[in-house]
Amino acid sequence: MGDVRGRLIAVEGIDGCGKTTQARRLADRLGALYTFEPGSTELGAELRRMVLGHHPMPIDDRTEALIMAADRAQHVAEVVAPALAEGRWVVTDRFGASTLAYQGDGRGLDLDELQSLVRWATGGVVPDLNVLVDVPVEVADARRSRAESDRIEVSTRAVRGRVADGYRKLAADDPAGWAVVDGSRSVEQVAADVWSAVHDRLGAPHG
Amino acid sequence: MGDVRGRLIAVEGIDGCGKTTQARRLADRLGALYTFEPGSTELGAELRRMVLGHHPMPIDDRTEALIMAADRAQHVAEVVAPALAEGRWVVTDRFGASTLAYQGDGRGLDLDELQSLVRWATGGVVPDLNVLVDVPVEVADARRSRAESDRIEVSTRAVRGRVADGYRKLAADDPAGWAVVDGSRSVEQVAADVWSAVHDRLGAPHG
Repeated sequence: MGDVRGRLIAVEGIDGCGKTTQARRLADRLGALYTFEPGSTELGAELRRMVLGHHPMPIDDRTEALIMAADRAQHVAEVVAPALAEGRWVVTDRFGASTLAYQGDGRGLDLDELQSLVRWATGGVVPDLNVLVDVPVEVADARRSRAESDRIEVSTRAVRGRVADGYRKLAADDPAGWAVVDGSRSVEQVAADVWSAVHDRLGAPHG
Repeated sequence: MGDVRGRLIAVEGIDGCGKTTQARRLADRLGALYTFEPGSTELGAELRRMVLGHHPMPIDDRTEALIMAADRAQHVAEVVAPALAEGRWVVTDRFGASTLAYQGDGRGLDLDELQSLVRWATGGVVPDLNVLVDVPVEVADARRSRAESDRIEVSTRAVRGRVADGYRKLAADDPAGWAVVDGSRSVEQVAADVWSAVHDRLGAPHG
């Protein structure tokens, strides 16, 4: 009992795909801890503001990736790893795959190098399952208003398309580590598919 | 002429060793750009405040290393690489070796992994020469007042000793890349030794 490690589920996808709603619902249904990146720790909230805020401060692509990795390292150390060690299940809204999709496919940084960076930052904590909430870019764009978008999301349609394709490739290359859910339908339908995918792969937490 | 790359000289050592004074004097004499880490860019100044400020915000060791790497990536992209590309000589008060000494020897993170992190963050920009201003920890302690020390420097004598030894080992392992100067003498004497070391190894900039 006491020494059973919990499970880590990362819900991933482009902004406007509905993943935050889905991650919260999944966590509720599992009785899991809901958390998110970037910005879920005190330090991470400052890092998030620096990277995603609408300010003119220049940020190099590598700097951006390193700040995201710093946020993740703190998130793992303060939130994720302690919860898993207590046997809790954790649902995180974004994790390492976001760095690969946004800073790799989106910005053009080398994916293998980013993978090494993510691995080091997390100290080897890897999701038991990634769930991609997959929607066409046009659907995501229609859902989110321009006012809500952050610095990274204010990008061309071409970049958003590369990020979406990057996620699909990550999932295709690692079918054991990913479930892909069609996020273009109703919240209820998507939630049912997310639940099925998680339950089929991981079962459910035991009281 | 125009396409001759400049030279990068990093002045390194523990706090209180006198390296800032020496780096400034060296830059003046060379007609080089003086710069420093962490905190020489707008973004870096915010990162520096987060990591070195006296606040209770928890910071994991890996997070600290990643934030220092982010500061360095921005420093290279905004300041160091453009100056070198213009043919300027650059003297930086701390560079990659500080991460190896402080986060490696000081905090206990793996040195090879940190080396990979530094290499990635800098995009391969390496000092043409590192100058270690070497002083015994007791001398450095006597020079700096407690009020001046930052969060990282508020550490035990044992940790400061490990950092000092870490620098010495880096220099011993790479004699072509390092010059070691005895920093325990007068500012004038140390400056003369730093100048000799740099001039012997790299010559001097041409108009």
